[in-house]
Amino acid sequence: MPDFIRRLPAGDERERRVCGTCGFIDYENPRVVVGTVVVDDGCVLLCRREIEPRRGYWTLPAGFLELGETIEDGARREAWEEARARISLDGVLALYSISRIGQVQVMFRGRFDGPAAFAAGPESQDVALYRWDDIPWDSLAFPSVRWALHAWRAVGDGPLGAPAGNPVEDPRGAHPLAPAGTETAQ
Amino acid sequence: MPDFIRRLPAGDERERRVCGTCGFIDYENPRVVVGTVVVDDGCVLLCRREIEPRRGYWTLPAGFLELGETIEDGARREAWEEARARISLDGVLALYSISRIGQVQVMFRGRFDGPAAFAAGPESQDVALYRWDDIPWDSLAFPSVRWALHAWRAVGDGPLGAPAGNPVEDPRGAHPLAPAGTETAQ
Repeated sequence: MPDFIRRLPAGDERERRVCGTCGFIDYENPRVVVGTVVVDDGCVLLCRREIEPRRGYWTLPAGFLELGETIEDGARREAWEEARARISLDGVLALYSISRIGQVQVMFRGRFDGPAAFAAGPESQDVALYRWDDIPWDSLAFPSVRWALHAWRAVGDGPLGAPAGNPVEDPRGAHPLAPAGTETAQ
Repeated sequence: MPDFIRRLPAGDERERRVCGTCGFIDYENPRVVVGTVVVDDGCVLLCRREIEPRRGYWTLPAGFLELGETIEDGARREAWEEARARISLDGVLALYSISRIGQVQVMFRGRFDGPAAFAAGPESQDVALYRWDDIPWDSLAFPSVRWALHAWRAVGDGPLGAPAGNPVEDPRGAHPLAPAGTETAQ
């Protein structure tokens, strides 16, 4: 099993995780999450998570970008894996830094290729299209799901402008859950 | 020393690098590069690289996002490290996938805090402000430097729209250098 210690490699400016057995330096880099607000006739596609963290809560089809993929490739792959949806992307809706957990999230706006068709993939319990007023705000999996939904609400079907960023109340992505009473205020 | 082999970990769908000594799984994720087109009075700040790859060639102040940073933090840090410039960011100018080398690049438009002030940091041979017509197009370090400069040219000082993406001739970021004759065509 790996036996990591933290130390400053020669020539580096930050402590890194170094394997005491191998000497391997495990550079811990931020990871890229790619996801999509898939819109159909004013409704949005949400997935109820079958996996932890936040099993049972609703999220956008999104996940970690894999090596060799473009951000667009990754977003389309996740829509297929989690929601069995074949989609096209309109452009970048939002870009979030979740520094607390070392993530950069790229959120697209997208739509179904052809008529709306979807089903729960292996990591989802359920997949559904929600009208804005019916979105299960109290059962969203992550703050950035709420942020992205509000970014979509602001732009609608119109031209995409500069991507939305973190909300002013959480510029670093430091809060795991929104402060009480702000669930739909953003 | 680490002794990595490639194999499929249990429950995974992709081969990963696994240390034959430790069993450590080295998930190779795409990395995030953050950089800035720093604009001053119609000129742009470029840095001549002191380090490989592409030592001696010109680039934008940019580098790998570190864990715990927001993308804005990282872009400002790189401007300081490479160009000794204190800057503010206007917003996201471009978002590139360089799948060949597993990078996602976030390029901002920015400006100096106060009057233009800069100097070569330890990773730069030289730092200079260039007018558009004087940019050393034949000595740029990376295709995405050229892409970002053209994205800036398209938007100027005006409002930032949806971020530019990869050029149509290289949607996956597959070309290490631009095809001959297209150096300034994008």
